[in-house]
Amino acid sequence: MTATMLASKPIVQKFKEGIQKDVEDLKLKGTEPMLATVIAGWDGPSKAYALSKEKTCHALGINFSLNVYDHNVTEDRLLDAIATLNEDGSVHGIMLELPLPKHIDSYRVTSAIRPNKDVDGITPENRGLLLMGKLDKALLPVTPLSCLTLIESSEVDVAGKNVAIIGRGETVGLPLTVLLIKRSATVTVCHSRTKDLDDIVRHSDIVVAATGQAGLVKKSMLSAGQVVIDAGISVLPDGKITGDVENGASEVVSYLTPVPGGVGSLTVMLLLRNLFKAIGLQNGRARI
Amino acid sequence: MTATMLASKPIVQKFKEGIQKDVEDLKLKGTEPMLATVIAGWDGPSKAYALSKEKTCHALGINFSLNVYDHNVTEDRLLDAIATLNEDGSVHGIMLELPLPKHIDSYRVTSAIRPNKDVDGITPENRGLLLMGKLDKALLPVTPLSCLTLIESSEVDVAGKNVAIIGRGETVGLPLTVLLIKRSATVTVCHSRTKDLDDIVRHSDIVVAATGQAGLVKKSMLSAGQVVIDAGISVLPDGKITGDVENGASEVVSYLTPVPGGVGSLTVMLLLRNLFKAIGLQNGRARI
Repeated sequence: MTATMLASKPIVQKFKEGIQKDVEDLKLKGTEPMLATVIAGWDGPSKAYALSKEKTCHALGINFSLNVYDHNVTEDRLLDAIATLNEDGSVHGIMLELPLPKHIDSYRVTSAIRPNKDVDGITPENRGLLLMGKLDKALLPVTPLSCLTLIESSEVDVAGKNVAIIGRGETVGLPLTVLLIKRSATVTVCHSRTKDLDDIVRHSDIVVAATGQAGLVKKSMLSAGQVVIDAGISVLPDGKITGDVENGASEVVSYLTPVPGGVGSLTVMLLLRNLFKAIGLQNGRARI
Repeated sequence: MTATMLASKPIVQKFKEGIQKDVEDLKLKGTEPMLATVIAGWDGPSKAYALSKEKTCHALGINFSLNVYDHNVTEDRLLDAIATLNEDGSVHGIMLELPLPKHIDSYRVTSAIRPNKDVDGITPENRGLLLMGKLDKALLPVTPLSCLTLIESSEVDVAGKNVAIIGRGETVGLPLTVLLIKRSATVTVCHSRTKDLDDIVRHSDIVVAATGQAGLVKKSMLSAGQVVIDAGISVLPDGKITGDVENGASEVVSYLTPVPGGVGSLTVMLLLRNLFKAIGLQNGRARI
């Protein structure tokens, strides 16, 4: 048996069409949507991510504002930058590239983003709305949304299913846990201190791996019928990109996301969908 | 074998002593701590809860402000009341008795409480800080804190333990899930759609029941060595108060919280501890 691959490509295409329509509708109403990114340190992966977003935005007719600061930027300077973007009515979404340099209080800068422009879903207010189940009012973090979208693309109904989430990070594991519980999955959150990982994975209908440890989820733990979402990204010594799930898993499970071409490849589209949700929230369709 | 009962009484006594010391220290510095409650509808359980808090506050030298509104109060009137308490420097904690009457948008009123006075931990900001693991900056909801305190009173270390939380509500189940994951427990969240409840409970080291369904957790699911926290409260037809755990469970498990005298009896003390944390936050020991 070979797994059906849950690739992001067809979903990206569908989302693009929706976003293009949203852009046209907004422009007819006189609004030019704009995403702003703030980057401290113009090097490493942040640069590549930002340029990729810029390219996608331009292709879809969305304005893009690139705010690049030196790696030595002060916290106050970053806070000023965010305050300016908060007040600028032509900016609809603010994306702060993480991680920030070590001398910056990441929590303080993150929290300064106005919640209804927080398209990456990282402010306490948006995290709180998620935990409270106020999903219509919240801007949700995009990687958990990507995992959820890919699970749903398998057409397996998550309600009542046993889900193992491996990884309890703030970016993926914890917010996804809440999203899946709200959809009536029975969720077990596993991590480095979990004693029965094999057993828990074996008894799960859906497995989400989000640890960044290449090959942590062994083929031997998996079986037919399972949906496996690989949200891990590691770079091997030979430069190849790989996920948390061991090679060969596709020979045993029913659905599997590829790495690359799975979870990560959907996030920019979900960020842009958040941008349109943010515009709705800014136009008074919710309190914040 | 008979379970060791994890009663709240000795913990309440210890907490009282700590609080009395905090009150004295604050008064020496010229601060008279004050808790304010807001009640819409002076009847039902809210009245009893409020009067019980008033009595405890007075016994401990804490000022108490009782703000009672008619069941027909308008949303704007409640929002005004909260705005006034937010601005009043002599008020350090605001406790809104829930549930509110049906014609009130509970989310809107809840969110109006200033986060650093939100001693019940119900605002989006405090929920978000919890999900982000910023526990030092957050005012946490008291019932999950009570469950955690009782688990810890068993002296069982939760790190690496399998925990089943039965109930995914916003008041207990979800916030407790996050708290226990942060303490390195492997947590499975169960609810009405869970298909293998018996099996999950059986394989757990710690079981927390928070459904409000009397006797949902059967003695037959439980076994020696387990710590069982009963956060359910139901009133039986004969007027007796009972929990979610079937009678007789104490004959099989190792630790069990009584109902009454367990989780519920600790919450007022935890609310008052939150009041002192709130005073710290208001004095600039954190951002909010």
